[in-house]
Amino acid sequence: MIENGQFTVIAGPCAVETYETTLACARSVLNAGAALFRAGAYKPRTNPKSFQGLGDKGLEILEAVRRETGIRIVTEVMEPGLVEKVAACADVLQIGTRNMSNFPLLKEVGKARRPVILKRGMAATLDELLHAAEYILQEGNEHVILCERGIRTFETYTRNTLDLSAVPALKELTHLPVIVDPSHGTGRRSLVPPMALASLAAGADGIMVEVHPDPDRSWTSDGKQSLDLAGFERLMEDVKRLLPHFGKELAPAWPKRTPHAARLA
Amino acid sequence: MIENGQFTVIAGPCAVETYETTLACARSVLNAGAALFRAGAYKPRTNPKSFQGLGDKGLEILEAVRRETGIRIVTEVMEPGLVEKVAACADVLQIGTRNMSNFPLLKEVGKARRPVILKRGMAATLDELLHAAEYILQEGNEHVILCERGIRTFETYTRNTLDLSAVPALKELTHLPVIVDPSHGTGRRSLVPPMALASLAAGADGIMVEVHPDPDRSWTSDGKQSLDLAGFERLMEDVKRLLPHFGKELAPAWPKRTPHAARLA
Amino acid sequence: MIENGQFTVIAGPCAVETYETTLACARSVLNAGAALFRAGAYKPRTNPKSFQGLGDKGLEILEAVRRETGIRIVTEVMEPGLVEKVAACADVLQIGTRNMSNFPLLKEVGKARRPVILKRGMAATLDELLHAAEYILQEGNEHVILCERGIRTFETYTRNTLDLSAVPALKELTHLPVIVDPSHGTGRRSLVPPMALASLAAGADGIMVEVHPDPDRSWTSDGKQSLDLAGFERLMEDVKRLLPHFGKELAPAWPKRTPHAARLA
Amino acid sequence: MIENGQFTVIAGPCAVETYETTLACARSVLNAGAALFRAGAYKPRTNPKSFQGLGDKGLEILEAVRRETGIRIVTEVMEPGLVEKVAACADVLQIGTRNMSNFPLLKEVGKARRPVILKRGMAATLDELLHAAEYILQEGNEHVILCERGIRTFETYTRNTLDLSAVPALKELTHLPVIVDPSHGTGRRSLVPPMALASLAAGADGIMVEVHPDPDRSWTSDGKQSLDLAGFERLMEDVKRLLPHFGKELAPAWPKRTPHAARLA
Repeated sequence: MIENGQFTVIAGPCAVETYETTLACARSVLNAGAALFRAGAYKPRTNPKSFQGLGDKGLEILEAVRRETGIRIVTEVMEPGLVEKVAACADVLQIGTRNMSNFPLLKEVGKARRPVILKRGMAATLDELLHAAEYILQEGNEHVILCERGIRTFETYTRNTLDLSAVPALKELTHLPVIVDPSHGTGRRSLVPPMALASLAAGADGIMVEVHPDPDRSWTSDGKQSLDLAGFERLMEDVKRLLPHFGKELAPAWPKRTPHAARLA
Repeated sequence: MIENGQFTVIAGPCAVETYETTLACARSVLNAGAALFRAGAYKPRTNPKSFQGLGDKGLEILEAVRRETGIRIVTEVMEPGLVEKVAACADVLQIGTRNMSNFPLLKEVGKARRPVILKRGMAATLDELLHAAEYILQEGNEHVILCERGIRTFETYTRNTLDLSAVPALKELTHLPVIVDPSHGTGRRSLVPPMALASLAAGADGIMVEVHPDPDRSWTSDGKQSLDLAGFERLMEDVKRLLPHFGKELAPAWPKRTPHAARLA
Repeated sequence: MIENGQFTVIAGPCAVETYETTLACARSVLNAGAALFRAGAYKPRTNPKSFQGLGDKGLEILEAVRRETGIRIVTEVMEPGLVEKVAACADVLQIGTRNMSNFPLLKEVGKARRPVILKRGMAATLDELLHAAEYILQEGNEHVILCERGIRTFETYTRNTLDLSAVPALKELTHLPVIVDPSHGTGRRSLVPPMALASLAAGADGIMVEVHPDPDRSWTSDGKQSLDLAGFERLMEDVKRLLPHFGKELAPAWPKRTPHAARLA
Repeated sequence: MIENGQFTVIAGPCAVETYETTLACARSVLNAGAALFRAGAYKPRTNPKSFQGLGDKGLEILEAVRRETGIRIVTEVMEPGLVEKVAACADVLQIGTRNMSNFPLLKEVGKARRPVILKRGMAATLDELLHAAEYILQEGNEHVILCERGIRTFETYTRNTLDLSAVPALKELTHLPVIVDPSHGTGRRSLVPPMALASLAAGADGIMVEVHPDPDRSWTSDGKQSLDLAGFERLMEDVKRLLPHFGKELAPAWPKRTPHAARLA
């Protein structure tokens, strides 16, 4: 899980695209120091005509990439009826910002034996985020990781307004780990590295960063907020250099999945 | 459905409580001129320890109330797996504000043969609301009713900020009917009647209003925003009096459900 | 002043442009039923390179238009040092949204013997608006008119989000009259008439509407939200027709200014 | 001024209270490494019955404290007519959040020969902040320092939502220095140190922090967000320790004011 004194970096593309790009990305972020690989098989998209993710095929690619590289997988689940299937593939389940208050889904992932990254809703208060976490916790799943990913304001230069004060605030209110997603939080590649370092300085337990081998050819509009492989490496250099001065160390890649781990995460 | 030139009033308590209070409320709002009765069997609640609705038992009470009074039922469905069950009871399905971007749920109600009231998300733009409606429409369900129910702002005197300009704006952007929920939109009983009349004046096709026989004893916190029966009657007097001056008439109560109607809504 | 049971319509262009267009506009709105004429001589503009108003020359034009038509003048004052000069010309002083919390300015207009229209700040709570009014009241000026003009939210289809619930809310909190500016509140010409009527229905004591003889040639960007003369006449037809059904009558044009009135407003 | 590669810390109480507490605070923050001392003589207060600052007496105390300690003074000016007087005392003028769009005031400080700290309006976009800066710059004053101090959102745990992404965003848009006020930005003492360090990590050129010798006895409500002297010292230890790892050094205290410096700042 996410340990005290460690800083966990989760990286990967917005969506699973081809096996080749997914594998290339996974290898690269693992090599650069990521603890976990993230990529979406099921994508919540505002427009029903946008690419909605590869679905089951995406899960297969993620499993193949894990077998090949050993890197453990974070992926989003969007509906209660798919939790079991997604949890069979994922090492960590992600609940997206649109589903923070999808209570049937929260209860269902509360029954899964997988850690859950719970993203703050776009217009959710910290109080509501904590109540959403309780929906998961009270089903017996203690491994909830809170994720600040930007809230909606009038500002248009950034896609959202990343509320970094949520990090120390949540640390006052709960013992749950808190990570930050500076990619969705800003929507701009150039702002990701400084906000990633600021997250670290604010006391976050980790970051989740979008990385794509060729962001301008991303299948989703999130390419604009994705670092390329070299950009992610440079960010990781800075993270590794700074961590000791904040009394933390980089969390190592999660150990390879074993038949046992596959069930207990 | 909701017809041009008509103003549809949907009224009822936040949640189904007992058979007796639900029946009393349904009789009263039907008598006062409501076209449809609303009450929640499944309640999305921020706090997992709050009353979550009676669930299946609530659906049974709603069916009994319909048999007894003939009034047709609007009720919320919160998860894809329950759409079939809820649609068997409901005459109109409601998608709550927290689920406006619950795309699997939208797809599922798109397959149901029931009209759907789609509430705007707390922080959703009109563009996103329309895209959410498309998720339903593209599954073949043409009967989508958009509902403005207040957005989240910094103001704290009201529970939300009711965005009435959404009504004429949506009229420019879509042919779908638009109704307003001034109860959730304001969170204060005293503000419901003026905002209901303002909705009418802004061009809304109807309103959805919370009414409870004894609001201070409501099982949910929404009692603060519920009209009592006499308050609803007074509001309906005003609505009936004003409608002709806006070139509209009150939509009559939906006809009693027949075996055929039960399937085709 | 603004009387109980009356509905006061204030109309005119964003800015004073030429004597001819200003006169044409004043004549037309007076004829259509406006009680007061509004036009800015000093314009607060985001961009320092935008047209900032004609200043003193604008005040002269306004005085000439009043002499010619008899219509009384509402105009904005932006700095304490100009209150005396602007008050000599204006019959009613306007404090714009950007200056709601300009406390030295509020104090200064509190000393002027002119009614003051105080616009709600773009991000001001009702509580803050009332406190701002107190700054004026406590200097001895009792004639404060509160104006809802839209608040800033994430929505981009409209320029601001017009918070009509502020009208009945303020009616619960204060005895001061409350008017609405649907032009700035929406930023779109097409939305002004429905929101003007909705303001009336919500209980407002009046409206302030931008009207320009040729909106597409307006010297400011506010042309997009200005009605043309025919559009304003149509709106006034609707207002006059509806007022009796809300128990109100149209406020007549303020009486011609006399030497006495010039001092006491 | 604020130099590239330096990190400028501005500290002091919300308001000038007594000579003794002001002197004690100035000595302490100077000793701990602050470059400038901040304290308000004129205070913008929502409620007209709240303490509005000591006014002229406050300026006198600030001058006495500067004579005694040598520390240079930042203080707020709220109206155009007082710019000359306040600039005679202040080494740096502050424009508060409520006055970001007070254009006559911006023009007036544009004529003053003092650097100006321009705070972002509570609901101002970055674009509007930059335009406000232009009002100052185009009068010939090149020494504008932009200050992010939190924007208004729906979140209530914090007083405002500190938008740290504004720091790297502004760095892309302008050459002007950017500082952060984590005290007003959060409204909670406990959140100030982490957000101060996060500001540094995000690339800010400095911070402005409220410090009070006895925060619980502060004459204003801002005591809740003020560090005490020991808390500020601890924060400065962290700042000094971390700066080299971000390629910066602490800006030294501004040199003692000389007759020349008094005029040219």
